[in-house]
Amino acid sequence: MTLKLGVIGTGAIGQEHIRRCNNVLEGAKVVAVSDINAEGAKAALQRLNSDADVCEDGFAVIQSPNVDAVLVTSWDPTHEAFTLAAIEAGKPVFCEKPLAMSAEGCRRIVDAEIKHGKRLVQVGFMRPYDAGYRALKKVITDGDIGEPLMLHCAHRNPTVPENYNTEMAITNTLIHELDVLRWLTRDDYKTVQVVFPRISSKARPHLKDPQIVLFETQKGIRIDVEIFVNCTYGYDIQCEVVGEEGIARLPEPSSVQLRKDAKLSNTILVDWKDRFIEAYDVELQAFINDVKAGQLTGPSAWDGFAASVAADACIKAQKSGAIEPIEMPARPAFYN
Amino acid sequence: MTLKLGVIGTGAIGQEHIRRCNNVLEGAKVVAVSDINAEGAKAALQRLNSDADVCEDGFAVIQSPNVDAVLVTSWDPTHEAFTLAAIEAGKPVFCEKPLAMSAEGCRRIVDAEIKHGKRLVQVGFMRPYDAGYRALKKVITDGDIGEPLMLHCAHRNPTVPENYNTEMAITNTLIHELDVLRWLTRDDYKTVQVVFPRISSKARPHLKDPQIVLFETQKGIRIDVEIFVNCTYGYDIQCEVVGEEGIARLPEPSSVQLRKDAKLSNTILVDWKDRFIEAYDVELQAFINDVKAGQLTGPSAWDGFAASVAADACIKAQKSGAIEPIEMPARPAFYN
Amino acid sequence: MTLKLGVIGTGAIGQEHIRRCNNVLEGAKVVAVSDINAEGAKAALQRLNSDADVCEDGFAVIQSPNVDAVLVTSWDPTHEAFTLAAIEAGKPVFCEKPLAMSAEGCRRIVDAEIKHGKRLVQVGFMRPYDAGYRALKKVITDGDIGEPLMLHCAHRNPTVPENYNTEMAITNTLIHELDVLRWLTRDDYKTVQVVFPRISSKARPHLKDPQIVLFETQKGIRIDVEIFVNCTYGYDIQCEVVGEEGIARLPEPSSVQLRKDAKLSNTILVDWKDRFIEAYDVELQAFINDVKAGQLTGPSAWDGFAASVAADACIKAQKSGAIEPIEMPARPAFYN
Amino acid sequence: MTLKLGVIGTGAIGQEHIRRCNNVLEGAKVVAVSDINAEGAKAALQRLNSDADVCEDGFAVIQSPNVDAVLVTSWDPTHEAFTLAAIEAGKPVFCEKPLAMSAEGCRRIVDAEIKHGKRLVQVGFMRPYDAGYRALKKVITDGDIGEPLMLHCAHRNPTVPENYNTEMAITNTLIHELDVLRWLTRDDYKTVQVVFPRISSKARPHLKDPQIVLFETQKGIRIDVEIFVNCTYGYDIQCEVVGEEGIARLPEPSSVQLRKDAKLSNTILVDWKDRFIEAYDVELQAFINDVKAGQLTGPSAWDGFAASVAADACIKAQKSGAIEPIEMPARPAFYN
Repeated sequence: MTLKLGVIGTGAIGQEHIRRCNNVLEGAKVVAVSDINAEGAKAALQRLNSDADVCEDGFAVIQSPNVDAVLVTSWDPTHEAFTLAAIEAGKPVFCEKPLAMSAEGCRRIVDAEIKHGKRLVQVGFMRPYDAGYRALKKVITDGDIGEPLMLHCAHRNPTVPENYNTEMAITNTLIHELDVLRWLTRDDYKTVQVVFPRISSKARPHLKDPQIVLFETQKGIRIDVEIFVNCTYGYDIQCEVVGEEGIARLPEPSSVQLRKDAKLSNTILVDWKDRFIEAYDVELQAFINDVKAGQLTGPSAWDGFAASVAADACIKAQKSGAIEPIEMPARPAFYN
Repeated sequence: MTLKLGVIGTGAIGQEHIRRCNNVLEGAKVVAVSDINAEGAKAALQRLNSDADVCEDGFAVIQSPNVDAVLVTSWDPTHEAFTLAAIEAGKPVFCEKPLAMSAEGCRRIVDAEIKHGKRLVQVGFMRPYDAGYRALKKVITDGDIGEPLMLHCAHRNPTVPENYNTEMAITNTLIHELDVLRWLTRDDYKTVQVVFPRISSKARPHLKDPQIVLFETQKGIRIDVEIFVNCTYGYDIQCEVVGEEGIARLPEPSSVQLRKDAKLSNTILVDWKDRFIEAYDVELQAFINDVKAGQLTGPSAWDGFAASVAADACIKAQKSGAIEPIEMPARPAFYN
Repeated sequence: MTLKLGVIGTGAIGQEHIRRCNNVLEGAKVVAVSDINAEGAKAALQRLNSDADVCEDGFAVIQSPNVDAVLVTSWDPTHEAFTLAAIEAGKPVFCEKPLAMSAEGCRRIVDAEIKHGKRLVQVGFMRPYDAGYRALKKVITDGDIGEPLMLHCAHRNPTVPENYNTEMAITNTLIHELDVLRWLTRDDYKTVQVVFPRISSKARPHLKDPQIVLFETQKGIRIDVEIFVNCTYGYDIQCEVVGEEGIARLPEPSSVQLRKDAKLSNTILVDWKDRFIEAYDVELQAFINDVKAGQLTGPSAWDGFAASVAADACIKAQKSGAIEPIEMPARPAFYN
Repeated sequence: MTLKLGVIGTGAIGQEHIRRCNNVLEGAKVVAVSDINAEGAKAALQRLNSDADVCEDGFAVIQSPNVDAVLVTSWDPTHEAFTLAAIEAGKPVFCEKPLAMSAEGCRRIVDAEIKHGKRLVQVGFMRPYDAGYRALKKVITDGDIGEPLMLHCAHRNPTVPENYNTEMAITNTLIHELDVLRWLTRDDYKTVQVVFPRISSKARPHLKDPQIVLFETQKGIRIDVEIFVNCTYGYDIQCEVVGEEGIARLPEPSSVQLRKDAKLSNTILVDWKDRFIEAYDVELQAFINDVKAGQLTGPSAWDGFAASVAADACIKAQKSGAIEPIEMPARPAFYN
């Protein structure tokens, strides 16, 4: 049985997902799409060699009797409405992050899903599907390093576009850690503090770069995340978990070791697209398989809500310089 | 268009390929199989949830008008006949190694394929599809280390079954290096010498383990390959290319770095199945794509023949202790 | 010319320094010692094959016309008085840390030294003499990574004695970072904050372990130091400097790389004595050479004072949980 | 008691040893020297701030009643005569390699020493004093990797002077491995074969570079040593010991790890002088200590003879292309 997918939004990510579903993944096919620019959608389908229908809008995609499940890859501010509509229609929906433009919006989706009575929503956080993070989680879960006490993390980009501002360090960059570190530690954030080191001369004047974000979790784990988006040297994701009996570190991407020019070196990636490229495939394949199996297991609407609540507190902490509480409601039994 | 595959032989590897083609890869489906044990084949298909037909024998699979291309995963001595029959039928065939039981048998396949006038055969050498070897080859091809002068390689297994003998170090173990090193260097072997170090006390009495195989290539590159199949510590594949301007080394498989018990360590794989697991997928996907595109580009019948000629010389060198010539005929233009 | 040294205090460290000066280093000889336990001192000299005189007390050592320079390795609370007496006598003095029991005490030494008009005091901070830290500093000074923006550090011990308490994490452990990071960055601390992660179950009940100490420097560099003295796995000192154009990391101690038991591993030291063993030699040799050359260049009384001021603020921050200022007076021109 | 040393030959190495003995090492002083250029010797002593006497020739140094032990650092062809004279005079002698210009010459020294009845000679092989090789030997001796079966080694220089020829790859380069590998394995060579890879275009026309030298030892260990003296990228010494239960590798020199310009790198040394710089100190300090203790334990005249016998066979193998025997007489009980 092939899962028939509708894709809302045929921009860069939407096209990428259409290609992925039709050519790389197993068990699914894109049968309907929509885009605010219908002509663009048609051209994209042609390029992608897809015979999917072009619907009038995202709601039409969701309603289409031919569509089994929906991918939301449209303009961020439309995510909430399309996701709610998919829940209303009782159709599984994979929504790219952000799930909504606010924690309240995420909460509305959570409430709608709980009311529906069954998980229908997966948020597009792909790091839990990265082989490196999965190996790291296995080490923790297997008890190899004892209980985690501290996490030292870094998220570094060589550079960022001109429109990138201080707040986007949270909403566009840290957002991935906000999700994956909850998943890794099976814990929730309790407080956050942001400190600003000396600003790099490589950063544009309106951007405070780097930043360090400090969390305390409910269990008392202390997490520090360095965000440095003008580090110049590469796209580099670090995560070190200090446990009671040892320390585990996220694998470096595999590369040829070179002895040359008085250096023993391995290559560091520079383009973020290369870093988690396989995780995108695994993530969407998992969604397809889970939909077919009748039970979603990936990042949930609750996870999207949690990331959003944490991001709001981070931004508050950026501005206040104080230790800000992260007030998460108790996790509903529905999401256990 | 889905490529309809016939699979000859539904043992362990055959079943693995059926699962792979039906569930993991894109653009192909297994529609017919055969096995010397027809009941076993039926049971396997049931377990694999496949509706493929069970044919009377491999020749029937090849003849079946429903079958576009053939995978040969049967008993080694039958490979040649099935591959020849597929060529005769003008159908693309992916044949697991060995292509034939002798260099002469491989040569018959080469001749048949040339006579047919178009490449139809891919041999199941998967290492050229491993991401690590591909990265290593790219470094060479890009000229990063200058012209290759020497290769230092190792092929180590933690242990081997009781029936494994000295000759199998060539035919079952070194055979992978025999193929991938030709591919890596775009060169052919000229001579071979085998030396036997002190035998490991971990090896069974009838097995000379380890062995070192020394090649000179047509271009004068010197290659040493350590074969050590009772190394106890892991399944470990090493390849270091010493060039005029630098040295490049096959990446170690990625793993979590641990600080524990006074050791800073990374895990070494112990099961060979884990080492190239992704390469099997890539290899077969490439075959499927190439068949659809109308042009095979993977390891050819000529490559299978070359590996077989080299293996024969290695076995001769094991016995003689002398430097043995490896006499390869000139590569036919057909295979350029 | 051999420098004639007096050693005050012949406990473990004192004996170690006598051995070092007499047998390992060049250009000095221990000619006089004292200890609160004179019999113990005599026995030690005999074991060490030294013909040094045993003086009545430390002041007698200092006064001895035979003594050119003094090493203070006595009970911590006596350091200040002996150092002041050495200054008074105009003799160079190498004083093991702590220079005094309080910042005020250190300040009295600074004032006395300035009044004397020439540097006479070196404090026993040995990390600036470690080859690894020196290599790291060279990378920074050479501009290889641009201006430093952040330092991520860790000081981990496998375990600590029963009497070790929360405050000692600052005074006995962090004290080394307090000195070496000032030296590395050529910067002074501005504020400090201490956060307490979940306590390790390996720590005794009265000890909060681990701790994270967060500094801001005058130039705005942000430093985090993890102190974890029950980490179980080894004695591990980490220091990573994040600069505008790259990141440099303190070298791991050199060790044999092993492939064994499914692990690719290097040894981590477990005994702190092994980690900086060469630095102790280099440190004392530098003192000897500098005394002979007439100009001290190592860690100064001012450095001892600065470390003490910072340590006091750290302890205050441990208790308050707040961001505490570190109020260092301007560096006197005398110490430039 | 200070050991009074005579130094024969005050060229670069002689001056280096004078500086070392007088300023770095403990328990010795250079009291007499000689050189074919007496004026040069005087100038050197002045530069080195040494009050040693300048004797008429090396024999006068040896005869001087003021001299306890002798360092021979003169022109290679004079080594044998000075070493024999020192034995004749019953004085301990440290002779830089080569001990003599031929195996026969070395044998004459061995015979004279045996006749004298007590070890007096240490040859200047410094690698057994390198901390890395010592750590590697400890791993072997401790049984961590089981019995050694194979050694894979490399000796690479970035470049060599114009006068360096093919034979010098043995006598000037491999000579260090010829000694240290015997010491590491406590074994003797049985046969040798040399193979010549494709010649690097970086090598001058008269030089066959690289070369691979293949040994079999008495115990059956197989050793391959790559000699590559125009490798361009650095001075790189590799030694990997493959044992029955694991593999141990010579430590890489410690260096700062850098993340910069899309590379994660460590520095490789380029100047051979930096690689074993500490080993020279340790080596000579050991000689001094051993002389004082009345029992030499370092590389012996027998070791010098063994290296010379092996080197002769290597050169024969370079020319013949055949597997050449290395015929070592049985080790006299005197050297056990």
